[in-house]
Amino acid sequence: MNDTATTRQAAYDYVDHLERRDWTALATLLADDVSYELPQTRERVRGREAFLRFNVEYPGDWHLRVRRVVADGRSAALLLDVQVGTERQDACVWLEVSDRGLISRIVDYWPEPYEPPPGREHLVERC
Amino acid sequence: MNDTATTRQAAYDYVDHLERRDWTALATLLADDVSYELPQTRERVRGREAFLRFNVEYPGDWHLRVRRVVADGRSAALLLDVQVGTERQDACVWLEVSDRGLISRIVDYWPEPYEPPPGREHLVERC
Repeated sequence: MNDTATTRQAAYDYVDHLERRDWTALATLLADDVSYELPQTRERVRGREAFLRFNVEYPGDWHLRVRRVVADGRSAALLLDVQVGTERQDACVWLEVSDRGLISRIVDYWPEPYEPPPGREHLVERC
Repeated sequence: MNDTATTRQAAYDYVDHLERRDWTALATLLADDVSYELPQTRERVRGREAFLRFNVEYPGDWHLRVRRVVADGRSAALLLDVQVGTERQDACVWLEVSDRGLISRIVDYWPEPYEPPPGREHLVERC
């Protein structure tokens, strides 16, 4: 596989292993020094063990479904459909993969719903 | 250029033309029936003319800078650094490009800062 194909497979496997809580399989995808970043809260988790524990301990009955994967060389972007209990949310995830095909950086965005600002009703429709 | 190269160029040009307020150049990138979607507010703008007007009328002194472009066939994901006045924010943008190389769908996410939930301080550092 070329870099893009390897990265795309890693992206799909990442979501699959998280969704199945298969921590052993997830660990095999990750670089030792993987960095997991949440820019909205300015949080960073460093290293595979801490990242696995972060997920093991994450509260709620969460479920992930891939809506879109865009892979390009050693980078990928994932658009996920996330269900936590009865709440649904989209997530945007940016992955970087090392030259050995291991995920070395994960950047997660959790965009929340908000009310549109006034003044553009003449241009938009609500879905 | 192959599909990925065409899509990558369209993604860079999209940000460049928006940033320069070059509406004529921006129009040449867009399909007639381009759909612009903001899932967080459940808003949709339909068609090139309405989308251009949405941007012309968008308030504030906004500036866009590309942080990352991931292109794959006729899809791309962009991570943007957005400055509006003195405020800075990241945006995640998903593009789809038609078989003629025109942008046919734009999905924008504007993730806002928030305070981290308690209970994971032992795993994270703040940046």
